[in-house]
Amino acid sequence: MGESKSMRVKARLPRGFRDRRAAEIAAERGFVETIRRVYESYGFEPLETPAFEYTDALGKFLPDTDRPNEGVFSLKDDDEQWLSLRYDLTAPLARFVAENYQSLPKPFRRYQVGQVWRNEKPGPGRYREFMQFDADTVGSASPAADAELLMMACDTLEALGLKRGEYVVKVNSRKLLDGVLETADIAESGRGIVLRAIDKLDRLGPDGVKALLGPGRTDESGDFTKGANLHHAQIDRVMAFVHHGNSDSSWARSISELDKVFQGTISSVAREGQGEIASIANVLTAAGYETDRVRFDSSVIRGLDYYTGAVFEAQLTFPVTNEAGETIVFGSVMGGGRYDDLVARFTGERVPATGISIGVSRLLNALRSRAALKTEPLVFVLSLDKNDRGASFALAAELRRAGLRAEAYVGEAGMKAQFKYADRRDAVVAVIEGADERAKGEVTLKDLALGAELAQSIESRAAWVKDRPAQISVKREDMVAQVRAMLAREA
Amino acid sequence: MGESKSMRVKARLPRGFRDRRAAEIAAERGFVETIRRVYESYGFEPLETPAFEYTDALGKFLPDTDRPNEGVFSLKDDDEQWLSLRYDLTAPLARFVAENYQSLPKPFRRYQVGQVWRNEKPGPGRYREFMQFDADTVGSASPAADAELLMMACDTLEALGLKRGEYVVKVNSRKLLDGVLETADIAESGRGIVLRAIDKLDRLGPDGVKALLGPGRTDESGDFTKGANLHHAQIDRVMAFVHHGNSDSSWARSISELDKVFQGTISSVAREGQGEIASIANVLTAAGYETDRVRFDSSVIRGLDYYTGAVFEAQLTFPVTNEAGETIVFGSVMGGGRYDDLVARFTGERVPATGISIGVSRLLNALRSRAALKTEPLVFVLSLDKNDRGASFALAAELRRAGLRAEAYVGEAGMKAQFKYADRRDAVVAVIEGADERAKGEVTLKDLALGAELAQSIESRAAWVKDRPAQISVKREDMVAQVRAMLAREA
Repeated sequence: MGESKSMRVKARLPRGFRDRRAAEIAAERGFVETIRRVYESYGFEPLETPAFEYTDALGKFLPDTDRPNEGVFSLKDDDEQWLSLRYDLTAPLARFVAENYQSLPKPFRRYQVGQVWRNEKPGPGRYREFMQFDADTVGSASPAADAELLMMACDTLEALGLKRGEYVVKVNSRKLLDGVLETADIAESGRGIVLRAIDKLDRLGPDGVKALLGPGRTDESGDFTKGANLHHAQIDRVMAFVHHGNSDSSWARSISELDKVFQGTISSVAREGQGEIASIANVLTAAGYETDRVRFDSSVIRGLDYYTGAVFEAQLTFPVTNEAGETIVFGSVMGGGRYDDLVARFTGERVPATGISIGVSRLLNALRSRAALKTEPLVFVLSLDKNDRGASFALAAELRRAGLRAEAYVGEAGMKAQFKYADRRDAVVAVIEGADERAKGEVTLKDLALGAELAQSIESRAAWVKDRPAQISVKREDMVAQVRAMLAREA
Repeated sequence: MGESKSMRVKARLPRGFRDRRAAEIAAERGFVETIRRVYESYGFEPLETPAFEYTDALGKFLPDTDRPNEGVFSLKDDDEQWLSLRYDLTAPLARFVAENYQSLPKPFRRYQVGQVWRNEKPGPGRYREFMQFDADTVGSASPAADAELLMMACDTLEALGLKRGEYVVKVNSRKLLDGVLETADIAESGRGIVLRAIDKLDRLGPDGVKALLGPGRTDESGDFTKGANLHHAQIDRVMAFVHHGNSDSSWARSISELDKVFQGTISSVAREGQGEIASIANVLTAAGYETDRVRFDSSVIRGLDYYTGAVFEAQLTFPVTNEAGETIVFGSVMGGGRYDDLVARFTGERVPATGISIGVSRLLNALRSRAALKTEPLVFVLSLDKNDRGASFALAAELRRAGLRAEAYVGEAGMKAQFKYADRRDAVVAVIEGADERAKGEVTLKDLALGAELAQSIESRAAWVKDRPAQISVKREDMVAQVRAMLAREA
């Protein structure tokens, strides 16, 4: 384009974003289709909302800042209204329900899968765009709606290839915790910091959480985090609850043991929570979901402020290794809970709702080694005569009509470079039709997978001569059958 | 949340965006999977790039405007760099190729499907977010690469259900047009306006285009569009070319007739274009793609500036009706061409490339009546005893295990409201297990589809009594088989 070098733009990905290639896309697509199948089998219907919402509808308010930048990507529209890219799929659902409440079936059960965007500082493995897969039930206060999501979580993880025992779905109720905080005389204004402290139990252990409930905690780097400043008695009370149900005891025992935690002073809100957990347990048990799959765990809190009842998360029970091969604490792979207030922001009326969310990329990362990367094998047709490209296309078209995946070379390089290219494309079989072959009504098939193997081992060379010809000439009309046979041999 | 009414946020979709429900999502997913299958069968590999690119990488420059707003959504990142949401999938591909050139197989053939965003004035049917599905071949100047995309376009449209003859893929070369403009002595600076005028042939007809090539044109509303101010002889020359190949003549005739258009003064660039069209024709013919599917059409221009060689588009040959039932000129459903300069913006080197793009929502709109909306039928399990929700869940779980789509009611309404709900959910069969039935080891199945039909016709009521019991009691253990039978009857 005649631009001088100094005018050139540097090709670079924006900070915190990434490109993705075939293998990862195929694995993710497999995951998404599996989750979708399970959710559809429960009768959840799909919904798609746009990437943008009005910033105020997302619950982000812009008092006097010129550009709202706290966690979301925002811009001002031509009509001076602020737009933001969605940072989750729950806020858009609340907007959708409020806008269409009259016309929706109640309860309204929908799933949505899509990208969300966070305007946060990127880090290793932390991207500013990622995929979420949510299912929510709006318009039912029944614990059956929560139970359904828990069952669906189990079915989903098993459909994704996890065996029973390789995961556990844990459920708790915010109402129980509210009851504990109430009976421990912890003011409502101080509860946010308590919630966040408990939510760190996995990472910090009980002593770390106790420190955060008390005066505060100094981490390894020397940084100090201010604590909730509770008294010893209050901390003990909270810790007694948090530590209580962290076991695989039966539902009945889990629930009755709660009475001990409350030491006879259970508040009405906690009693309500206890009843809801019992109802959830009844549904699960009747439907055959036992405590080897779903169990009560009082340490499950979920960080978000908006939960009002049951909260749940799914965890893997086997060690997960990161890309460096180190075993890591993976945390939850699904999470959710009941939130009864989100629609009220718009309508003024409380609409009971409950939902569960999967961070698809995150789950994919944890199950990477198990993700089935099923790609159809590729057949590569060489192009030997630049003036007769049609011949190789006709061969490829014939292979495709037979249901095979076939690529005719469209580049301009010679034969050697074409084989190199076929190798980079992971092609399994090469089809060659030179002038001689065409005159004889034949094509040559080359087993590229075998070639790659031969390059590595002497033994297979011997076996090759006997059983697997790396290259054969076949009648043109037998091409499809012979390619199939070669693919079958390499499968 | 105790917010006063005045504090409430109005729930509203942002201007120019839309929500989409189950039927549309299912139809679109069917389309996307079909296109993907065809592209994969040709050996194209998937690629995903992020929603954002650096604004300069998109080819949008921000000289001194504070907020770049011309067609793209842009915002300033924390580090003061401008980001924009992608407005197509070609610019991100150019960035990706430039950034990863060394490590890519050449030619690099990729497909990408995803949303793109346009910051334009919304209108009826014009949204600011929509889905594109692109396939591009980067790194081959061979007409075989163009021919491959044309074949793929045919295969895609047929895989989407179009019969041969219901579509036509038209191909032209910008080089031919360049040659015409050159021999007609039309300055390079004036060619953009000429391109855009010719591109309107479909909508305005030859007289409209002639006016735009001359002094200008006044439209129905009285608005005047300035013309290219060509002389009569120049206009005749351009129109002779544009009108030339608008027929179903054979490739050989189309190509040789071009000589007439150039009247012996064909320029070297036009000669090159003619040769490329001939090469494309050879490949297509050899691979069995005749002029009933792909043909030369000199009126195909494609509006975009960046095309440098072959340009193509696919059109439907049958009348398309809009939602109001009116027949409309639908224009192209796929379009693309060769662009050899996009990567050079980054690297300074020309990299030959060619691509084709499908506006998925647009195509879906045109083929709406033909889109197969295959949803699995829904079985609805009523919940009659609030204190024993588990029973209905166990029934639904059993139906799902048998591969059926089954929903247990999770709301809190009574039986009558549950039937109403099932109706809104388009459930086909309802399963009812009351206390009496349970005692007898039975469940009741109700044919909801039949009920809906009965409500409309007296005749079917008579048939019903005979052949189709609207409601039957069956043994609990026969439930799955009996539900299947009922679904089969209603299929």
